[in-house]
Amino acid sequence: MRDVIAAPVRRSGHLASSRDLDRTTIDDLLPRAGRMATHPGEAAHRLQGKILATLFYEPSTRTRFSFESAMLRLGGQVLSAADAMSESSAAKGETLEDTVRVVAEYVDGIVLRHPEKGAARRAAGASRVPVINAGDGAGEHPTQALLDLFTIQQELGRLDHLRVGLAGDLRHGRTVRSLGLLLAHFPGTELILIAPPELQLEADVRDQLREAGVTLRDEPDLGEAIGELDVLYQTRIQRERFTSPAAYERVRGICVVDPVMMRRLPPGAILMHPLPRLDEIAPAVDADPRAAYFRQARNGLPVRMAILDWLLGPA
Amino acid sequence: MRDVIAAPVRRSGHLASSRDLDRTTIDDLLPRAGRMATHPGEAAHRLQGKILATLFYEPSTRTRFSFESAMLRLGGQVLSAADAMSESSAAKGETLEDTVRVVAEYVDGIVLRHPEKGAARRAAGASRVPVINAGDGAGEHPTQALLDLFTIQQELGRLDHLRVGLAGDLRHGRTVRSLGLLLAHFPGTELILIAPPELQLEADVRDQLREAGVTLRDEPDLGEAIGELDVLYQTRIQRERFTSPAAYERVRGICVVDPVMMRRLPPGAILMHPLPRLDEIAPAVDADPRAAYFRQARNGLPVRMAILDWLLGPA
Amino acid sequence: MRDVIAAPVRRSGHLASSRDLDRTTIDDLLPRAGRMATHPGEAAHRLQGKILATLFYEPSTRTRFSFESAMLRLGGQVLSAADAMSESSAAKGETLEDTVRVVAEYVDGIVLRHPEKGAARRAAGASRVPVINAGDGAGEHPTQALLDLFTIQQELGRLDHLRVGLAGDLRHGRTVRSLGLLLAHFPGTELILIAPPELQLEADVRDQLREAGVTLRDEPDLGEAIGELDVLYQTRIQRERFTSPAAYERVRGICVVDPVMMRRLPPGAILMHPLPRLDEIAPAVDADPRAAYFRQARNGLPVRMAILDWLLGPA
Repeated sequence: MRDVIAAPVRRSGHLASSRDLDRTTIDDLLPRAGRMATHPGEAAHRLQGKILATLFYEPSTRTRFSFESAMLRLGGQVLSAADAMSESSAAKGETLEDTVRVVAEYVDGIVLRHPEKGAARRAAGASRVPVINAGDGAGEHPTQALLDLFTIQQELGRLDHLRVGLAGDLRHGRTVRSLGLLLAHFPGTELILIAPPELQLEADVRDQLREAGVTLRDEPDLGEAIGELDVLYQTRIQRERFTSPAAYERVRGICVVDPVMMRRLPPGAILMHPLPRLDEIAPAVDADPRAAYFRQARNGLPVRMAILDWLLGPA
Repeated sequence: MRDVIAAPVRRSGHLASSRDLDRTTIDDLLPRAGRMATHPGEAAHRLQGKILATLFYEPSTRTRFSFESAMLRLGGQVLSAADAMSESSAAKGETLEDTVRVVAEYVDGIVLRHPEKGAARRAAGASRVPVINAGDGAGEHPTQALLDLFTIQQELGRLDHLRVGLAGDLRHGRTVRSLGLLLAHFPGTELILIAPPELQLEADVRDQLREAGVTLRDEPDLGEAIGELDVLYQTRIQRERFTSPAAYERVRGICVVDPVMMRRLPPGAILMHPLPRLDEIAPAVDADPRAAYFRQARNGLPVRMAILDWLLGPA
Repeated sequence: MRDVIAAPVRRSGHLASSRDLDRTTIDDLLPRAGRMATHPGEAAHRLQGKILATLFYEPSTRTRFSFESAMLRLGGQVLSAADAMSESSAAKGETLEDTVRVVAEYVDGIVLRHPEKGAARRAAGASRVPVINAGDGAGEHPTQALLDLFTIQQELGRLDHLRVGLAGDLRHGRTVRSLGLLLAHFPGTELILIAPPELQLEADVRDQLREAGVTLRDEPDLGEAIGELDVLYQTRIQRERFTSPAAYERVRGICVVDPVMMRRLPPGAILMHPLPRLDEIAPAVDADPRAAYFRQARNGLPVRMAILDWLLGPA
């Protein structure tokens, strides 16, 4: 217990990107999160007297609650802006930098969700307290990536030599980028990109991941790829991104995971999804022990506790 | 004091309907609520370390605040989704069951308000923590019913052989159903239904209540009925339910309680209203000692404290 | 330390207007706020067990957060209605008085922001707990005025014989009225009103301030006035108040403070702004040590801590 509660290895100022998590930090945070999951009471006073602000310019009850619950479970307090875009001075034309600079005077840490790529990094530049990126448009979502990593480790017992299939809408790239950048720290990572051409991963993210050492492979057909995967990571297909209902229906039909498709997933593999899921995973799949997405959601709590403790906790 | 703070008689998993409150539970909760009202400090640490989520798919500051204040007064903490419909994954098409299943991983209890009848029961089925129904459309509002019961007991000193007039818009039935099902546990309950034909209680609720043992009587004219009542329970008449302004004005004119109408209410009787009130009760009535609606609102706090303690407290 | 933590000199029930702050109270609150700023830990349990409700009928993340953070820093708890207008019973037609009367049953104090002048005073009349005005339309914003006063004292070391230039949109008068009424308690206050004719201060506010003993002077040209000021207090020019884009552009051009304009501000003077700022102050000015607006925003926390302690704290 002592070595878990001891100070983290190093303290980054902010968590704007998966790049802020080096291998040493990951190796420190994952067992901390594990300890938070099994012995939550040990950390019940770690952040006593601290206040976390959640600034959500794009509403998301679930993500917001998981951060806020993590803060409360650590003995801290929370201030919420559930719909900061309509509520705040943003509507009056204030810059994000000005808003963050002032909010940082009232709290000890800021969790930011924002529709614009790069918003978290800009906010970090204006804030005297740690800023945590809870999703910045097509940019990154590093705490989701860390909980994904934690989930894979919990479920499969290892993080190296994994063949991870990413299916669905990869075009906007946030999930792939953030998870890929973390998996790049482990040897033998292979990402199989399973998407129709119009939803495929963009070139700049591919370049980033290849540069980081990840092997990428395109596979338009889920049925072809699924049999060789360790992890099938399904993502949401957003209806509003399609120009015609027919295009949506066609893509949806290709990517859906149902009990028939699950027969092809190897017995030791798992099915993940960041949620919310729509039609991409049939409810009948929920009962399959390889369906890990609700356990994955549960892992959001201890992983975010570990992150908050790392950034806001006593040195 | 000991027997008040002792564990409740039994622990239902959820409070989705007045049916979840049997006579033994009611007889346990009402004196607990009384004790919470007179000795709030005794329970100040009962729910320390617990977190309650309020998921309001239909905004209601007042109801939400009364639950959240109750939780804080018990030493617990709160996560709020004041406008869950626009904020949450519901907007992205996620099912209520998926949302609740994930939120239940982050908290120790969920208070749900939702526009759809039956939503609370569905949510309870998906949640591993207690779900409390704070109103599900035309369905039920059991905590309101219990605070109504508590108020009647406080004001009149008894719960048996009551003649309760329910006036206003009874068509959607939530108040009548939830309160009627609780009063059915006490002998000699008679409900007088005071409403124009277009706002009368529907047949299925009548059947439920008669089956539970309540005597029902229709009385379209408030002036006729008021003189024999122990309780006049006025409800809000919602303008938006009427097809024409003229229809609204006609009904409104029939049901308004003003000082003249109050002269006919027996001296020992009380006037209740779940609030918000519009024109159904003239402000001039507020000063009448029989006007119990603000005391009724105040009772929301100790009654909800008792309910939260019952569902979330130490066994 | 003892005399700071000791009970305040007197306890007003509410803070609806700067008129609720007499000279004795101001002289008590300012050093308390100073102590809160330098020794925040001393007051960490002052409001333990108390609950503050923030009822914002006009959203403002920043102002709401500063009150809520102040409450949490004092050991209290918070219930938030970030968007009370759309969320609450107001949408159903309930009066503000009814809403406040019920909310007052659940909490120990209410912070109200409302678009209507006079709303705070009306709310105070209906509430059995203290009501604090966080802005009521064209009415007042007394806690902003007190933090402005605190800032001037911190920055300039005195509150008497000040020449304060108020620039921008003075027509709606809230800032000028609330700050002017406080400065009127100190000898030799001169307010220079720097605004184009269409945005000038209205006659009733002028009368109020002159009656209170403040000297007023009109000066349409910022460039003329700036050289003799101790404080230049810039306010936001709201685009939506103008009938044509051309009128807005013309006014905006006259009032903007940029590094060139700053050269004319005396070395010992300061530049203030209640924020959010739009184009009235160029970002290049931020680095100037006389730019006090972010320090001013920071002062919102200790000043509101002192106010909450004064109104809700142990006698």
